[in-house]
Amino acid sequence: MQHSGDLLFGLFVMFGGGKLLAELFERLKQPSVVGEILAGVLLGPSLFSLIRPTSAINGIAEIGAIFLLFTVGLETKPSQLLRVGGTAALVAVVGVVFPFAFGFVFVQWMNHKIVESFFVGAAMVATSVGITARVLADLRVLQTRVAQVILGAAVLDDILGMLVLAVVSSLSAGHINYWQLAAVTAEAVTFALLMVFLGPRLVGQLRPAVARLQTANSPFVLSVVLCLGLSLASVRIGMAAIIGAFLAGLALAEEGEHWGLQRSAHPVMEFLAPFFFVLLGAEVNLRVLANSKVVVMALVISVLAIIGKWVGCGLGALGLGPKDAVRIGLGMVPRGEVGLIVAVVGLHLHTISDAIYAVVVIMSIVTTLFAPPLLRLVLETPQARETAETE
Amino acid sequence: MQHSGDLLFGLFVMFGGGKLLAELFERLKQPSVVGEILAGVLLGPSLFSLIRPTSAINGIAEIGAIFLLFTVGLETKPSQLLRVGGTAALVAVVGVVFPFAFGFVFVQWMNHKIVESFFVGAAMVATSVGITARVLADLRVLQTRVAQVILGAAVLDDILGMLVLAVVSSLSAGHINYWQLAAVTAEAVTFALLMVFLGPRLVGQLRPAVARLQTANSPFVLSVVLCLGLSLASVRIGMAAIIGAFLAGLALAEEGEHWGLQRSAHPVMEFLAPFFFVLLGAEVNLRVLANSKVVVMALVISVLAIIGKWVGCGLGALGLGPKDAVRIGLGMVPRGEVGLIVAVVGLHLHTISDAIYAVVVIMSIVTTLFAPPLLRLVLETPQARETAETE
Repeated sequence: MQHSGDLLFGLFVMFGGGKLLAELFERLKQPSVVGEILAGVLLGPSLFSLIRPTSAINGIAEIGAIFLLFTVGLETKPSQLLRVGGTAALVAVVGVVFPFAFGFVFVQWMNHKIVESFFVGAAMVATSVGITARVLADLRVLQTRVAQVILGAAVLDDILGMLVLAVVSSLSAGHINYWQLAAVTAEAVTFALLMVFLGPRLVGQLRPAVARLQTANSPFVLSVVLCLGLSLASVRIGMAAIIGAFLAGLALAEEGEHWGLQRSAHPVMEFLAPFFFVLLGAEVNLRVLANSKVVVMALVISVLAIIGKWVGCGLGALGLGPKDAVRIGLGMVPRGEVGLIVAVVGLHLHTISDAIYAVVVIMSIVTTLFAPPLLRLVLETPQARETAETE
Repeated sequence: MQHSGDLLFGLFVMFGGGKLLAELFERLKQPSVVGEILAGVLLGPSLFSLIRPTSAINGIAEIGAIFLLFTVGLETKPSQLLRVGGTAALVAVVGVVFPFAFGFVFVQWMNHKIVESFFVGAAMVATSVGITARVLADLRVLQTRVAQVILGAAVLDDILGMLVLAVVSSLSAGHINYWQLAAVTAEAVTFALLMVFLGPRLVGQLRPAVARLQTANSPFVLSVVLCLGLSLASVRIGMAAIIGAFLAGLALAEEGEHWGLQRSAHPVMEFLAPFFFVLLGAEVNLRVLANSKVVVMALVISVLAIIGKWVGCGLGALGLGPKDAVRIGLGMVPRGEVGLIVAVVGLHLHTISDAIYAVVVIMSIVTTLFAPPLLRLVLETPQARETAETE
């Protein structure tokens, strides 16, 4: 414990600084997660150098990411997912293909390594359920058809994003083995399908056994064991830990309400996730922004990310009429947690450069700041509200 | 994240193994915390070697200890503490003097370093509020006078234990500077008094400001900032981090109910504390038990710990009549978290040997296993229950 001063100083500065800027961003009606990332950029080695990423801080941030995805999974009921059905699935799939293709082609055209192009494409795939859901809830339009399609598609997006990440992170060797690619895809899809279709049933059958446990808050304890176990399993079969955490949450989502899992998992996430986001910001090397090429690339990628999602998802939702298609496309623009996680995985695997990492982080921040005000604009007009109410 | 497999494996084994043995111990009507410690002994380097204490795991365990003491503090309302008054204070103080003196004198007589004698004495001081409270709650006697004196005294004990630890850990240099000793004692007492008397008032005045915060679950977020900040502060002024965490909890205890702090802090503690207890067990070097001198010493210390508390607290409670004095003395026997924390601090400061560390851990386990069945016996007789009900 003689070094506990250093660790505590890091944790105090990260949590305090992150939450201070998060509060500031909330007051500016901006997503608080952007505040936490910027706190990391300010406090990190690039500027004030108050945060040094030690292995203890890295570990804590990683558990933060695991709990973050676990709680996102817990909020994603497979049954509800299956009910939103057709439109959401179409929106999700088309909305994944466009940004991935845009990102991949542009980065390839800029003469980067093919693995980097894959990572940028992958980081552009997943919509931030958290940010979109918060904006829709603030506007009190969660029960409208537009909102439900957006949320359903955003959740499917997360799953697709996870699959893309699983596949892409298996490319870390630097060269592409198409057999291995196929194997990982098959593994990831099988893992995900098992969790979506079999997971909830298996968990449901555990209910009487869980009721007999003597341990305090035993459902939560068991869910943590499952979360850590599946995270470990996905690392062992060559995927990112967070994929297992997300799927564990998914499998527990149906029983979770009954067991009060969210009530327990949420505070743990609230405590640990800020370390992940602040560290994310701290790992941005601001010096790469002195290179105007990187700045231009970040802006182009941000624009491509916005257009790709807007057009892709809009096309997918065209069946609901042009107005709703525009709204749904816009609602899908914010990238957040998952895109950033893709970037961090890439950075830690040494498959993407500091410059590409900064580009992805900037893209996440730009898309996240861009969508909420516009979304408010198109959903808050009296006409939109009327449409929303009659639906 | 390439090493995330190792970290996750460690965390999974620690949490899963710890909770498995905890469940087993619950079923045997024994304190679950002993199960977690034994899981650490089994999985640690001495036996199966599945747990290797890396700096990430040490860091996570330390935050576990901080949250553990933070939640204990949250459950300790200074106002209630002041109300139990006289008897509890007398029980606490006499109950601290006896075991400390017994431990110190015996270890000195065994020709150990004076610092080691101080550490053993300090580890014998603090009653485990958690274990005692759980047994009293199980027996549904929490509202009796005996139970209230026990709990009040146990809480005062924790504060005294923390003060003793603060003083003792400042001795880590190995030689004793009495000026420094006085300075740390003054610091620790001032810090504690400030938190008990001024803390709740200051926190109460923060209430309107907290209500204006936009951050989700802002009271919890602020309380975490306070907890980390005071932990850091106590490290900086030369005390253990957990002392600050405990005092932060104490200062927040009155407002905590209103803000639902326990509801948020508890799951974080439930997730993180097992890593602390399992690691505690893993750091026991079983090879020292091959030395029969160590085994004898552990048994003698355990007996002294039991007699010291029983007699000391019994004497302090004699005003309530001999029967209740015996019950109260017995209720104060279990040592737990705080004693173990003292031992870990000593081990990490390299001021106590592996053998002394093992002795303290064994003492904690023995006293913890010893008291609950006896406590059940003396409190569960129809007569005791009747007395309890009429009081």
